[in-house]
Amino acid sequence: MMTSPSYKEKELLIMRALLRLLSGGMSIAEIKTSDIAQEAGIGKGTLYNYFDTKEDIFARTIIYSIDTQLHAVFEQMNKAQDFKSKCYTVLRIVHEIASNEHSDFHLLLFNLGGKDMKQLTGGDMSFVRRYLSVIRGKVMLLAQTGAAEGLFPPPCDEEYAYSAFAAALMSFVHARCRMDLPTDKALGRAMDNAYTLLLKALS
Amino acid sequence: MMTSPSYKEKELLIMRALLRLLSGGMSIAEIKTSDIAQEAGIGKGTLYNYFDTKEDIFARTIIYSIDTQLHAVFEQMNKAQDFKSKCYTVLRIVHEIASNEHSDFHLLLFNLGGKDMKQLTGGDMSFVRRYLSVIRGKVMLLAQTGAAEGLFPPPCDEEYAYSAFAAALMSFVHARCRMDLPTDKALGRAMDNAYTLLLKALS
Repeated sequence: MMTSPSYKEKELLIMRALLRLLSGGMSIAEIKTSDIAQEAGIGKGTLYNYFDTKEDIFARTIIYSIDTQLHAVFEQMNKAQDFKSKCYTVLRIVHEIASNEHSDFHLLLFNLGGKDMKQLTGGDMSFVRRYLSVIRGKVMLLAQTGAAEGLFPPPCDEEYAYSAFAAALMSFVHARCRMDLPTDKALGRAMDNAYTLLLKALS
Repeated sequence: MMTSPSYKEKELLIMRALLRLLSGGMSIAEIKTSDIAQEAGIGKGTLYNYFDTKEDIFARTIIYSIDTQLHAVFEQMNKAQDFKSKCYTVLRIVHEIASNEHSDFHLLLFNLGGKDMKQLTGGDMSFVRRYLSVIRGKVMLLAQTGAAEGLFPPPCDEEYAYSAFAAALMSFVHARCRMDLPTDKALGRAMDNAYTLLLKALS
């Protein structure tokens, strides 16, 4: 399932209904299972065929949302030709996700504090580790692409190489957050900085 | 006030009472002004001499907590002798803050989502910019220290240099989060990675 979404039709109806309620401004505390069923246009009984509790809906919707988002990122990255365009593609998508206040991702992040997250997932944050491991695999493939293009030596310390990619991405996100108004020029400069930082770190 | 805390005694009593209530497990929604007054051992009337609303208490407690924390970081950093020990000092403090689930910082971060934060501060996030500008000033001073020690050339692009420090710090925090159990050895390696990354990025 992870990063290659495959959900049952009704499951999707229910999870998307929850995301619509959140995007309509309802808070997680306010939303009842009956609201979700109504928004999805299905009976409460049907809902319980697919989910055990309200918390279960929330938890699985979070995973669904991350799945979908990651899948889109990897797909775009694969389409880009070389190392540099792959890197800039990821930065551009991250910027778009962060800019779109109506994206699922934004909604969930904005509505959920760490405490909610822990409650909803029953304290089992192992799904985060699973995602990180998928992401790490993709990052190491990307690093191999760059090394094959002769942009830097093949990474001998995987942990360090991974850190360099994470650092470059986070420095871009941080630069973007510091902009009053993200103009194309300012964004371009922030992307260039992140890319320079990455190449230097891996050199 | 910023990063050089100076508060009235009663103000402190009230803000610390709020932090104790949060650390006792109460949620922001549950806490009433009367709870804070009671915990602080003062009358509700007295409380309103210092704060306008419950939201006002929350908003100023957040700022108080960041002030105190930043002040401590800068003080420790100043005490360290050279560039490398200053960098490792900051990483160590960040690790300690992140490890201490009872720290004010942790409590606030853990209890507040982005939405709460926006509500509490009335959507005025300008205080974040003020902090970032204080931090940026300190970072540029630190960069000058490193350049003076001949570790890298004096930064000509301030924005890039600042990004490099932010990237190194965030890569450390991310590495720390990925550890099942942060052992001294693993932490030391993560600090070394962050420091290497910083030097390379600034080279």
